[in-house]
Amino acid sequence: MFEVQYARRIVFGPEGPEKRILIRRDQTAPWLDLRTALRLRSVARGASAERASALAAALAPGSTSQALRGGADFHDAVAAVLADAPDDAVVTDPELTNALDPISYRDFMVFERHFSFGYEWQNKPVPEVMYELPISYAGDPLSFIGPGETIPWPSYSERLDYELELGIVIGRQGTNLRPEKALDHVLGLTIFNDVSARDIQGREMTGGLGPSKGKHFACVTGPLITSLDELPESGLAMTARVNGEEWCSTTTAEMVWSVAEIVAWASQGEVLRPGALLGSGTCNGGSTIEIGRRLEPGDEVELEIEHLGVLRNTLGTPAGETWWPAARDRSGGSAETHFLT
Amino acid sequence: MFEVQYARRIVFGPEGPEKRILIRRDQTAPWLDLRTALRLRSVARGASAERASALAAALAPGSTSQALRGGADFHDAVAAVLADAPDDAVVTDPELTNALDPISYRDFMVFERHFSFGYEWQNKPVPEVMYELPISYAGDPLSFIGPGETIPWPSYSERLDYELELGIVIGRQGTNLRPEKALDHVLGLTIFNDVSARDIQGREMTGGLGPSKGKHFACVTGPLITSLDELPESGLAMTARVNGEEWCSTTTAEMVWSVAEIVAWASQGEVLRPGALLGSGTCNGGSTIEIGRRLEPGDEVELEIEHLGVLRNTLGTPAGETWWPAARDRSGGSAETHFLT
Repeated sequence: MFEVQYARRIVFGPEGPEKRILIRRDQTAPWLDLRTALRLRSVARGASAERASALAAALAPGSTSQALRGGADFHDAVAAVLADAPDDAVVTDPELTNALDPISYRDFMVFERHFSFGYEWQNKPVPEVMYELPISYAGDPLSFIGPGETIPWPSYSERLDYELELGIVIGRQGTNLRPEKALDHVLGLTIFNDVSARDIQGREMTGGLGPSKGKHFACVTGPLITSLDELPESGLAMTARVNGEEWCSTTTAEMVWSVAEIVAWASQGEVLRPGALLGSGTCNGGSTIEIGRRLEPGDEVELEIEHLGVLRNTLGTPAGETWWPAARDRSGGSAETHFLT
Repeated sequence: MFEVQYARRIVFGPEGPEKRILIRRDQTAPWLDLRTALRLRSVARGASAERASALAAALAPGSTSQALRGGADFHDAVAAVLADAPDDAVVTDPELTNALDPISYRDFMVFERHFSFGYEWQNKPVPEVMYELPISYAGDPLSFIGPGETIPWPSYSERLDYELELGIVIGRQGTNLRPEKALDHVLGLTIFNDVSARDIQGREMTGGLGPSKGKHFACVTGPLITSLDELPESGLAMTARVNGEEWCSTTTAEMVWSVAEIVAWASQGEVLRPGALLGSGTCNGGSTIEIGRRLEPGDEVELEIEHLGVLRNTLGTPAGETWWPAARDRSGGSAETHFLT
């Protein structure tokens, strides 16, 4: 394998748009539609047209995370197609959507200058735990969108922000992994934009449960997943541009914990499943609050990571009206009962 | 509808155990296997045996959350079966697993005496936001188990705990809901055990991102989902027993925010999807830390909520060895680069 890349394109059929997994053996090779390639391969091996379509659809569904749940059957199918690619499966200039639709995700916070700024923003010292454990919070896997889609601007926020992050895609199931084995369970890396509503995030985080409404309305994953085989150990360049102007230029250096350590820690006592996404947390300078800038509705945000492509989205416009809860009195334990309504 | 209940049973087929959705029109009616009932209904309406099986399997898959994603097609199918239940679909004494396998979940913290204790445990005053907004954190929807299953005890923890919570099951998609409309989007309520590893939870929460390794290794949902139609407005009794001894007896009173308010707030700026679970947070006295008790491997935990059944699990035994990250020095921004390994 030579820096295999995974992507998804949008095709239009009689029922409207559908998604197809694409693969290529390296960044210079042509893209192959995995389902088409598997169908042609089955036909060449004697399957009927109808059965070849059904077998290919089962191995290569529209969802990358569901495909990865196929385990070694999926990985073997990819390897077979890369080893003997049928010309008729080649796709030129595909319209790419997000390479991954994760089945679960959690986001770490491993860039030191970013988290140091974050605690300063909250008027707190950097806690000891940041140098003892990679800490994380989970988000909603159903809120993911892809390149080119409009990022919704929730009506409850006046302060939307991007976060330029490295996304780690789990490819093989594992539990209680040690770092030296952890990368075997990683399919590859992708760009991850952990879109944030800073005003509500700041308020809710005073409660100590982490971010929630400040994050769950949208996440964006990038157009490519690139395998780790030929990535430089020393790191990858990371860039953010807003309306074409460079607002951040940094690298994956200053990660307090490595990709292998993040995956190993996430797997302790848990089953890490194929199709799960682990975010690195924002890179240094990779959001607007830490550089004193501000986004407006309609702004175009471009996030780029070396070898992982460009993730470009436009911000939506706040619409509708938010329902806000009515504040409660502190009862000291004798609150009025609230149950159903 | 008269307090419709949903459950899932385990059946054994040629490929091993599989799950089947059960429904009944009230707590005294017999259980019906939804897929069997739909198959028999289709045959009676002229479908071939093969097509009737396929149609029934598409409307009533083994996953409750996937079934709910069927929208009004699913709800109409349930209504049709309840209105004209075929005798051959009746199931007596089914072995029940968890009624819901959520596609996403977040957990709130709305019981005042519980959260007041929690902040005291962390040596903090109760923050203002607890009386301004229902705050929450998200978890991993892939870690759910059901009644009777052994709760894994992660080797990194010496302090496992249960949390007795009310689970709110979303049944119909919605966004930007107001409380007076929110209950229309709730399928019903279930028992939720938000299993917690207190030692690691306490450490990681000093980082301010909320709980993660302290929670993600296991969650348990109850054997029943009960619709809201006939539940008392004044609340439900909640009980926890350990090895048969009562450790908690309380009610859903003292919720600072109601079910309708929780759902409405969760839906602001987001699409709440059918099959999502919202937890109430621990009821007052509904965990061991706040009552000065301690669980041991092998203990039997029984959580009961009026109208929602009993959720019984045994705690496992710590096994294997945890890999712990090596602590880092504070670098002041000049950290050694860590990227891949």
